[in-house]
Amino acid sequence: MMAVSYSLCPQSLRVSSGARLCISGGGNIWDTHKKKTRHLVCASTERPVKDFCIESKAQTLLDGVKWDDKGLAVAIAQNVDTGAILMQGFANRDAVLTTISSRKATFYSRSRSMLWTKGETSMNFINIHDIFLDCDRDSIIYLGKPDGPTCHTGSETCYYTPVLDLKEHQQVEGNKLALTTLYSLESTISQRKAELAAEENGKSSWTKRLLKHNDLLCSKIREEAEELCKTLEENEDKSRTASEMADVLYHAMVLLAVKDVKIEDVMQVLRQRFSQSGIEEKRSRISQS
Amino acid sequence: MMAVSYSLCPQSLRVSSGARLCISGGGNIWDTHKKKTRHLVCASTERPVKDFCIESKAQTLLDGVKWDDKGLAVAIAQNVDTGAILMQGFANRDAVLTTISSRKATFYSRSRSMLWTKGETSMNFINIHDIFLDCDRDSIIYLGKPDGPTCHTGSETCYYTPVLDLKEHQQVEGNKLALTTLYSLESTISQRKAELAAEENGKSSWTKRLLKHNDLLCSKIREEAEELCKTLEENEDKSRTASEMADVLYHAMVLLAVKDVKIEDVMQVLRQRFSQSGIEEKRSRISQS
Repeated sequence: MMAVSYSLCPQSLRVSSGARLCISGGGNIWDTHKKKTRHLVCASTERPVKDFCIESKAQTLLDGVKWDDKGLAVAIAQNVDTGAILMQGFANRDAVLTTISSRKATFYSRSRSMLWTKGETSMNFINIHDIFLDCDRDSIIYLGKPDGPTCHTGSETCYYTPVLDLKEHQQVEGNKLALTTLYSLESTISQRKAELAAEENGKSSWTKRLLKHNDLLCSKIREEAEELCKTLEENEDKSRTASEMADVLYHAMVLLAVKDVKIEDVMQVLRQRFSQSGIEEKRSRISQS
Repeated sequence: MMAVSYSLCPQSLRVSSGARLCISGGGNIWDTHKKKTRHLVCASTERPVKDFCIESKAQTLLDGVKWDDKGLAVAIAQNVDTGAILMQGFANRDAVLTTISSRKATFYSRSRSMLWTKGETSMNFINIHDIFLDCDRDSIIYLGKPDGPTCHTGSETCYYTPVLDLKEHQQVEGNKLALTTLYSLESTISQRKAELAAEENGKSSWTKRLLKHNDLLCSKIREEAEELCKTLEENEDKSRTASEMADVLYHAMVLLAVKDVKIEDVMQVLRQRFSQSGIEEKRSRISQS
């Protein structure tokens, strides 16, 4: 049994024997055996030692934030898998600390003068994976996974009003989200698929032909994978590799559309694999067995 | 010859015959023949009609922005290809209009009380592809392609200080950028490649084995592409498709690392293809010839 003082949790804390603790603000010296989860009992709430150490480190970092004259900093919520900017609000110190302890993106409402956790009414929480400060220490990224649409309008993100509308070739039906390249392509393919259902026979775009003919699509995926490998085996230049990889991605994404699989789901698989000590170990096990 | 009034460019404007113009703020009715570029001559600066129409539409949109008591809104610069949040600043109306006309991300400096264009000293401009407003109309995304590192420290983005530092399994050497899933994986693979050079022989991780043995790597890429196709051909469930696509991506990304090709370069290829009226047309031409 040991007692520590801690501004977030001033009660005395119990810790099971064997765990090493970081008590001071700066360090990250928690290295108790990974397989055994040790807990600090904070009043009636059980919280792992690791959380305690993270919050302790965060307190120190937050001391260095340049809060504005209202005690606020800009807080941007970003989808950890797709990179989509979900929403932007403001956070004070308590909002960031609440975000850290609850792992739900929490902001300070300037109009209501109170903390609010995104999702507290809609249940569409943004589940935090990491938090970053910028070089000036007055801007924060909440990197997280949303449970559902973030915008109160039901849109996936709050940014659906283009000012420039430059993509004249890309007629995205009822969806003008600020999409980055991969997701913009996904949206275009998805639109072609929707058009296909309503269409008479006639001259189809390449994407539509791929969407209709599984045999053509699969033969193209195999062919493009082959060509990507050849850029390595035959020592072709880097621009060929980038070009063939683009082909692999595009054709594979058409297959995802046929199967109704979102690229975000693929990213989630990748993230879960390499955060659970990695693809590498899994692959290594498979390859050894 | 026709004259219009326009707040950005109050001089009379000349337009070559045949082009149709949108004069009023709201519409987007410019549809002069795509192959022939028509120009408005704005004082001594030649600017295409399309720019004029975009700016005209933007003026109307900016009328609806909820600028704060200092006339500012939050402006977030995001990499159009990777989704990385590059930096965050503030913009007033003039900053947004300058961004639109110059196609370089421009902000309002609160400390110097003046406009500044990112890159005006470093030459690392952020070249604008699109601009989005959020649902509350008080937050702006500048979606663009950076010429080089955005941060004044030389870092790719300004967000390199993790508050949580949750990724204990991922030891990213001297690089703690706020990376989303695909780029986080790319960073891990790149780190394995760097370690490989310095390493004695011994038990290697799967990624390192792939990095060392091109034949193994290529056979895995072909095998994973095959398995992805089979999820369609043999009607396997969606989770299998997501999992096999993750395998394709991971192994293909190891090949990119071997060839020193960034996934961002691949995204650029994709964007350029489908913004030049699309992959589809290119593919369609190839397939017909």
